[in-house]
Amino acid sequence: MATPLNEMNPQECEALAKDVRERYAELKAKNLNLDLTRGKPSSEQLDFSQDLLALPGTDNYRAKDGVDVRNYGGVDGIVDIRELWAELIGVDAENLIAGDASSLNIMFDLISFAFAFGTNDSPQPWSKEPGAKWLCPVPGYDRHFTITEQFGFEMVNVPMLADGPDMDVVEDLARDPNVKGMWCVPIFSNPTGVTYSRETAERLATMETGAPDFRIVWDNAYAVHAFTDELPENPNVIEIAAEKGNPNRFWYMSSTSKITHAGAGVAFFASSKENLDWYRSIAGVRGIGPNKENQLAHAALFGDAEGARALMRKHAGSLAPKFEAVIGILGERLGGYGVAEWTEPKGGYFISLDVVPGTATRVWELAKEAGINLTKAGSAFPHGTDPDNRNIRLAPSLPPLDEVTDAMDGVAICVLLAAIEHRIEHRGAQ
Amino acid sequence: MATPLNEMNPQECEALAKDVRERYAELKAKNLNLDLTRGKPSSEQLDFSQDLLALPGTDNYRAKDGVDVRNYGGVDGIVDIRELWAELIGVDAENLIAGDASSLNIMFDLISFAFAFGTNDSPQPWSKEPGAKWLCPVPGYDRHFTITEQFGFEMVNVPMLADGPDMDVVEDLARDPNVKGMWCVPIFSNPTGVTYSRETAERLATMETGAPDFRIVWDNAYAVHAFTDELPENPNVIEIAAEKGNPNRFWYMSSTSKITHAGAGVAFFASSKENLDWYRSIAGVRGIGPNKENQLAHAALFGDAEGARALMRKHAGSLAPKFEAVIGILGERLGGYGVAEWTEPKGGYFISLDVVPGTATRVWELAKEAGINLTKAGSAFPHGTDPDNRNIRLAPSLPPLDEVTDAMDGVAICVLLAAIEHRIEHRGAQ
Repeated sequence: MATPLNEMNPQECEALAKDVRERYAELKAKNLNLDLTRGKPSSEQLDFSQDLLALPGTDNYRAKDGVDVRNYGGVDGIVDIRELWAELIGVDAENLIAGDASSLNIMFDLISFAFAFGTNDSPQPWSKEPGAKWLCPVPGYDRHFTITEQFGFEMVNVPMLADGPDMDVVEDLARDPNVKGMWCVPIFSNPTGVTYSRETAERLATMETGAPDFRIVWDNAYAVHAFTDELPENPNVIEIAAEKGNPNRFWYMSSTSKITHAGAGVAFFASSKENLDWYRSIAGVRGIGPNKENQLAHAALFGDAEGARALMRKHAGSLAPKFEAVIGILGERLGGYGVAEWTEPKGGYFISLDVVPGTATRVWELAKEAGINLTKAGSAFPHGTDPDNRNIRLAPSLPPLDEVTDAMDGVAICVLLAAIEHRIEHRGAQ
Repeated sequence: MATPLNEMNPQECEALAKDVRERYAELKAKNLNLDLTRGKPSSEQLDFSQDLLALPGTDNYRAKDGVDVRNYGGVDGIVDIRELWAELIGVDAENLIAGDASSLNIMFDLISFAFAFGTNDSPQPWSKEPGAKWLCPVPGYDRHFTITEQFGFEMVNVPMLADGPDMDVVEDLARDPNVKGMWCVPIFSNPTGVTYSRETAERLATMETGAPDFRIVWDNAYAVHAFTDELPENPNVIEIAAEKGNPNRFWYMSSTSKITHAGAGVAFFASSKENLDWYRSIAGVRGIGPNKENQLAHAALFGDAEGARALMRKHAGSLAPKFEAVIGILGERLGGYGVAEWTEPKGGYFISLDVVPGTATRVWELAKEAGINLTKAGSAFPHGTDPDNRNIRLAPSLPPLDEVTDAMDGVAICVLLAAIEHRIEHRGAQ
């Protein structure tokens, strides 16, 4: 086990610095071109659903209730995929709409509709409430924050704990009537991999809110994305919230993007009947219906909910070794130096790496100069600003395993070098 | 040729009334259940693109520039379908984005984005301009009007002439800085079938507008939907507007909805680079990209632009006899009575029927009671209100030819009966 960096004497530190600088020079000499930036499925994963490219198949164009999927209509999507998906994620099919592309589109529309017209519980459109705020568990999903930034919300950071966002903080902040909502990725959260406990879900469903139209975007993107055979508990928050007297609290999202083909996804929106009716009343002005052929193709590909779970086990087989490699290398190369902490998720798409505070941007720069593209430091925070400048999101899904290994070898060197530079600078300033 | 109703003496009128009432009673006794309400393609038309259900086909997942259509990305859509479509509608592929579903979705988003954030030429978001107005050529497309109603625009009716909207009126109204835009269906317009002349297009591109961010939604939904081999002239209004110094004037829409399968469409948005960049900057927050597999499937189905034109000739073969039947029956049954006028389009999806002013709602009721569903009277006008209560939109595409014939036989009776009732009532009041 290495000596922690901050317990080294100047000679030890110099010796380590010399060694790490040499290793960094060797790294640069390799002229790598590696990418750990985005949570995209790999080619191998996309191949698992290759049949989708020829589905629903000639002469297969009737939903099971007889609807001709080739023609206009049906803003809710087809019954085949709605029933299958409702079973998979554990909600009532009556509460579930199947739409196009990714859930991001629906999340944007929900906030956009509320901004322009107000929700079904709003006294007025959100655009007329200039001080509107939004709760953002951090680190979190950059594309969530970009939406609330676009609509001008003041984003309030909430720390993530091991069982979800710090609920004492959330409950306190939610009393402010200006707080209109909150982003959540409840299972294998982006980027920490944290899964919310049932207690967290229940507190979110139960808490008092200052705003009558407070909404939680429950972006359950990784509900079935476990690396083991054991899926995490997935409480039906729509039901729980109704029991607690807050039936319209959750806008629940799901999608096939990281299950079949991200470039041809089906997105799902589950909520109370009142919320769905409100959404339908505007979505029905926006369009005549989603791509029903793609929905029938997905129903044919899966067969049933168990078919979707079986497909996810293939994904686990592809992703687990990459996650093990990342976590193994971080442990081997950085363990003991006290220069980094990281999460060890059992599912999802990301690992969250915390380096020495103040050095994340430098780690990103060093990696970039060595041909390793990391997601920009701070990108898991609103406005791209990590107040501690220490968080880096690692996304190992896309590259093949050997590239993940090469990239992480390099990242470990960069983390250590940035920590040493910081320590030397810090010592000089004392 | 029949005597015009308003030239008949009371005895002639009574005799006709008796005859028409008997024919209406016979009609009701048939217990019909017919539907001429919506511009949906028929099963026969959907069958023309049956191959789409198994496309792009296993192992076909690369766009021609190498993009893997199965994965995330590409807010502009894939190059294969963009180039093909640009050629088909006569615009530059650089000016064309391919998106999901139908162009209605993109039109809604354009207005929604402008409402929330302002366009690239707007001094402020449209939501901050409470007196904003929108020009609506009438009769027009109900779903257009529903969008501008949803966003609270004051809709100003503009009469349609034989070569497009009355441009003297448009030019005059457009000087008002509160007028932010205008709906247009330039070729085989919904519901009149009118095609704008080149002069109309040029005047629209050239005219001075009071608002610096005035936009024309150029919904070119029927550009290739002719019943003859001769396609109407389709001027490149993006180019013309740029020449006239108004490069950002047109938001140009197109889609595959009424070409392949309306339930699995590809939508297109063409405009100036500045307009597209503005759209991308927000659409890129809303989503990660459209369904690229469906775009590749469409490119494979068409092969090239001529493939799309060939497909349209099949549609013409299916639609032309239905339009001929409608026009033929109207002429035979109503000609000479002076109780109706109708358009005789050479393409598109609709026929516009003007009955005796004040009787359109009654015609709709009489038809409904006889089991013939017509689009609600007034639906081709903003707020569903036809100031003259005389317009009915006929949509003959969906039912088989024999049902179109039966329905129109009935409609002719209803038009005549409503006219007679109106004349009797009117005479009584004198």
